[in-house]
Amino acid sequence: MQRIPATIGDTVAQVETPALVVDLDALEANLDTMARAVAARGLRLRPHAKSHKCPALAAMQILRGAVGICCQKTDEAAAFVEAGIGDVLVTNEVIAPAKLARLAALARRARIGLLCDDRRAVHALSEAAVAAQVTLDVYVEVDVGAHRCGVAPGAPVAALARAIADAPNVVFAGLQCYEGSAQHLRSPEERRAAIDAAARAAIVSRDACTTAGLRVDRITGAGTGTFELEMANGLWNELQPGSYVFMDADYSRNTLMEGAHNFRQSLFVLAGVMSTPAAQRAICDAGLKSMSFDSGLPVVARRPGLVYEKASDEHGVLHVEPGAVPAQLGERVWLVPGHGDPTVNVYDWLVGLRGERVESVWPVARGTLG
Amino acid sequence: MQRIPATIGDTVAQVETPALVVDLDALEANLDTMARAVAARGLRLRPHAKSHKCPALAAMQILRGAVGICCQKTDEAAAFVEAGIGDVLVTNEVIAPAKLARLAALARRARIGLLCDDRRAVHALSEAAVAAQVTLDVYVEVDVGAHRCGVAPGAPVAALARAIADAPNVVFAGLQCYEGSAQHLRSPEERRAAIDAAARAAIVSRDACTTAGLRVDRITGAGTGTFELEMANGLWNELQPGSYVFMDADYSRNTLMEGAHNFRQSLFVLAGVMSTPAAQRAICDAGLKSMSFDSGLPVVARRPGLVYEKASDEHGVLHVEPGAVPAQLGERVWLVPGHGDPTVNVYDWLVGLRGERVESVWPVARGTLG
Repeated sequence: MQRIPATIGDTVAQVETPALVVDLDALEANLDTMARAVAARGLRLRPHAKSHKCPALAAMQILRGAVGICCQKTDEAAAFVEAGIGDVLVTNEVIAPAKLARLAALARRARIGLLCDDRRAVHALSEAAVAAQVTLDVYVEVDVGAHRCGVAPGAPVAALARAIADAPNVVFAGLQCYEGSAQHLRSPEERRAAIDAAARAAIVSRDACTTAGLRVDRITGAGTGTFELEMANGLWNELQPGSYVFMDADYSRNTLMEGAHNFRQSLFVLAGVMSTPAAQRAICDAGLKSMSFDSGLPVVARRPGLVYEKASDEHGVLHVEPGAVPAQLGERVWLVPGHGDPTVNVYDWLVGLRGERVESVWPVARGTLG
Repeated sequence: MQRIPATIGDTVAQVETPALVVDLDALEANLDTMARAVAARGLRLRPHAKSHKCPALAAMQILRGAVGICCQKTDEAAAFVEAGIGDVLVTNEVIAPAKLARLAALARRARIGLLCDDRRAVHALSEAAVAAQVTLDVYVEVDVGAHRCGVAPGAPVAALARAIADAPNVVFAGLQCYEGSAQHLRSPEERRAAIDAAARAAIVSRDACTTAGLRVDRITGAGTGTFELEMANGLWNELQPGSYVFMDADYSRNTLMEGAHNFRQSLFVLAGVMSTPAAQRAICDAGLKSMSFDSGLPVVARRPGLVYEKASDEHGVLHVEPGAVPAQLGERVWLVPGHGDPTVNVYDWLVGLRGERVESVWPVARGTLG
């Protein structure tokens, strides 16, 4: 367990670095913006909690009208159910018997759903539900373009849906139609084309189910990069955006479409300057072990002329541009991670800041690999 | 805290995925190889524990003759001292008063050293040591080429060493001369040139200290990629390699010099295949949250024709090459991480495998950001 990096009431200067911090004003604005946008369309919002892994934050989403949450791992589901979240959809295939047994046990206390993309898995899901004397919501994952998990659109979807519908203690709950690879396409046109294609794949799949006499009550999906397109499309009746709560440097590189909702950067890694060996160079204490670099280097916020240039395991090399205020030993640096989700994943605590003061220290269900 | 992924005696098939696993035969061979190589030169081995963060593994290194360990964070130092390691060098600058107070408290129970590269920090170090009524070993970090932390070679080193020597309750213990940027230079010639340059920087710094009447008892440094060069050079009398215990895909890309010691890949992320949506595509449960991708994609071991092609947060897309054995649902996949240290950093448990059986489950001091 990581040391708790701050105490309620601390100032930013008192927070031990490196620390994961959230600007609560920006966070709440993001939560409100998304809740209003989805409610205005009369759709269901089921935000993806894999972004924050934080029960306290999931509760804030529920209180703003979310029907429940998504997560990606069985241990995440356990953490959220234990924290009082009553409706959890694991937007992932689960086949390991031990994991299925845990999910089924959770279904005694909460509504639990998961995905399926393989007929051979249906029996295992059903068996786990029967053993625990519960019912599991099972969604067929349709490969709507990401080419990750999921069955091919159309007839294969109906065939799998039928197998689920016929199995004991599992319910065919609907279709998972998430176009993950569209979220970070830079231009609105590219994203629109990807979601249009995803919609076509979803429609043929829904129609194949209907033809087979299976009602499709739910088409769920969408992410922060494209949710406006799924909303406007009208096919999806449940939306799963996650990253909007925090945003990150990579999402900020997307060009927004006209009239798009604007989300604020609320998540930062707060680093401390530990060495100023040269006028143009300062070293901070947040490197490869404090952030994920899969989507590039972090961006320095609130500090013109300071550039995060290079990372090693526990160090970040900051370039001080000519004319910029010199970096001070012990100075706090606000870093916007390149990719939020895997950055949150290395922290046990999320420090909530109201302006310059610590208002909350929330546990993160980081220990959830499985 | 993560779920303990295995029980002693389990088979590989019973280990819950994703899990961090170590091949104990390969690990012990690596420990022996390094211990013998350094002992043969009559030098001190102070392995870097930032690679494994694992007290049990540090103990194995001590029992093979290591004089102590290095670590990079004050909370790592605490974890190792609490586990009974008696000599810990934090190879990093520490300036935060709270961190210095913790380090000084540890010095009541173990020999504690740290680095300094700034005259303004000397007072803080000394003050913390005085307050705790302990003595701290302080090494001057010399910038021998990595241009990260460290003071310029020569006179500036002597000036800082003098300030340390004159301050109460801190001892000028020697010079930290680590050429981090040389470790992953691919050709032996490049690495040799970098270490030769580092040696020249170390010599002028040592000589400047001697001229100033300061004895330099210790020149410490070196890493897995270059330690043979520092050994052969004769200037360094203490070596700090860390990654040799596990190795990783990036180190495997270094061309070894003639007669170099060969270390085996002992560390793997054990993943499970959760979806086989197409003949040429399988999806495993280890992605961006299960490994560090800063040095590229993981490499699939022990499984010809399976290639880790693409990662998302909780998924890895595996390409099944034509002619390869088809991927099986539930199959275990052995992944060699691109970069070992930050991969270990996301796990709470390290599963030790003797052949196909679980022999140990060691806690990792992962919770050590500060």
